[in-house]
Amino acid sequence: MPRQITAFSNSTVKRLRSLRDKKARREEGLFLAEGLRIITEARDSGRLPEIVAFAPEGARHPLAAEIIDATEAAGGEAIETSAEILSKMSGKDNPQMLLAAYRQPGTSLDALDRSAAPLWFVAQSLRDPGNIGTILRTGDAVGAAGLILVDDSADPYSVEAVRASMGAIFTQQVAKAPWAEFVSWLRGGAGQLVGTSLNTTNDYLEVTYEQPCFLLIGNEQQGLPEAYEAECDMLVKIPMAGRADSLNAAIAAAVMAFQVKASWR
Amino acid sequence: MPRQITAFSNSTVKRLRSLRDKKARREEGLFLAEGLRIITEARDSGRLPEIVAFAPEGARHPLAAEIIDATEAAGGEAIETSAEILSKMSGKDNPQMLLAAYRQPGTSLDALDRSAAPLWFVAQSLRDPGNIGTILRTGDAVGAAGLILVDDSADPYSVEAVRASMGAIFTQQVAKAPWAEFVSWLRGGAGQLVGTSLNTTNDYLEVTYEQPCFLLIGNEQQGLPEAYEAECDMLVKIPMAGRADSLNAAIAAAVMAFQVKASWR
Repeated sequence: MPRQITAFSNSTVKRLRSLRDKKARREEGLFLAEGLRIITEARDSGRLPEIVAFAPEGARHPLAAEIIDATEAAGGEAIETSAEILSKMSGKDNPQMLLAAYRQPGTSLDALDRSAAPLWFVAQSLRDPGNIGTILRTGDAVGAAGLILVDDSADPYSVEAVRASMGAIFTQQVAKAPWAEFVSWLRGGAGQLVGTSLNTTNDYLEVTYEQPCFLLIGNEQQGLPEAYEAECDMLVKIPMAGRADSLNAAIAAAVMAFQVKASWR
Repeated sequence: MPRQITAFSNSTVKRLRSLRDKKARREEGLFLAEGLRIITEARDSGRLPEIVAFAPEGARHPLAAEIIDATEAAGGEAIETSAEILSKMSGKDNPQMLLAAYRQPGTSLDALDRSAAPLWFVAQSLRDPGNIGTILRTGDAVGAAGLILVDDSADPYSVEAVRASMGAIFTQQVAKAPWAEFVSWLRGGAGQLVGTSLNTTNDYLEVTYEQPCFLLIGNEQQGLPEAYEAECDMLVKIPMAGRADSLNAAIAAAVMAFQVKASWR
């Protein structure tokens, strides 16, 4: 039976709320996901939360009721609370009626299944968690295997990234590694490393992409460091018509990924 | 000579700060842009601010000094203030050292130059100003003419949209209109209306895009209403591999736009 909690000062409420901070996420090894859609996506991928919190309206949906039951049956905790407390926990004015904390999977390169799909995203020092989540969502749509975060990146388990991923945080593989470690892992198997760059005349529509293809996306402000470009098996350019000569990082990743996939048909 | 302002209570400071609110933007007919990059982009597109505020560090860059001078020469107002006050005005912890208020151009359909480029974005009820700004930025990169916002949409002149546009708010045409008005304008000239939808078997890679092409993007949650799809000259589908069967609206717009452009080469 779910416990009923009406106090902001309750320790589970505090614990869930703390997961909005990176430090607490690291210490607890947990992360937050909100809303029936994402939480159902997780369940369909075989993942149940360790803690699920809901407002009475949130439990009315049969899918939600099912997930709440399954969470308790698996030894997790379910708490019924108010929309106001949910709002406090999620940091949103109009909170979803369902909020859940999941165990973070490991993010080591060794745990990756390279053969899961012929396309991977590799992103260097991405600063915007929304971009990370959007790239994961795009990866799910385009059939990528996952996202490797290189160097110092925003947290893929932040509330913003999980939200933008629309559930893809549960379906895409995620790893984090310093550049040197990533390169060493990459070269231990098959893979073409393709960087998007302005320093090339290779048109992204006119080259041959091999399988598996690793699409390397640079930081939002600086793009790729020279040494990283030098490591690429191929640099390609998306021709730009405008003044600004740049695309949002998640947009560039998507345009490249859909073109790579189109080239394989 | 720029006035020096050190008080939060100064009326120009208050006025600039108020522009973070939609109501004040509508009443004043102004909007905010931050940072040397975007403000230079505006100047290069022939646009000077009505008010420019800067921290002393911000005026040191020769481009910034030039724009501050040009603003005053054109009858605008320049104020020198502190980083702390700039931060208050922009709502950012690490504010850019330069902030400017620009006159909003009209957003009527009649003011659009249909022949400016063969590609347009049309977005229905977009809720996220970041998506609007990102679509404008993509439009600049892909060589689109502009963005037509149909029905009730987030404000393209909000701080978030302007920021995400990376200056494209000054280079892309922008109009707002109810659907019926847009359709009547569209049918008054040449143009193929292309909707992205799951309700079709037309693969986006296998169809013929005409010029000018108007890419219709649906609301983030619901996608396009049936009647809007029925008005389209062609519906196309981006095949999805994943579970979630959806892309972020700005991502879908970009994937479509780059494919349309590729098909014309």
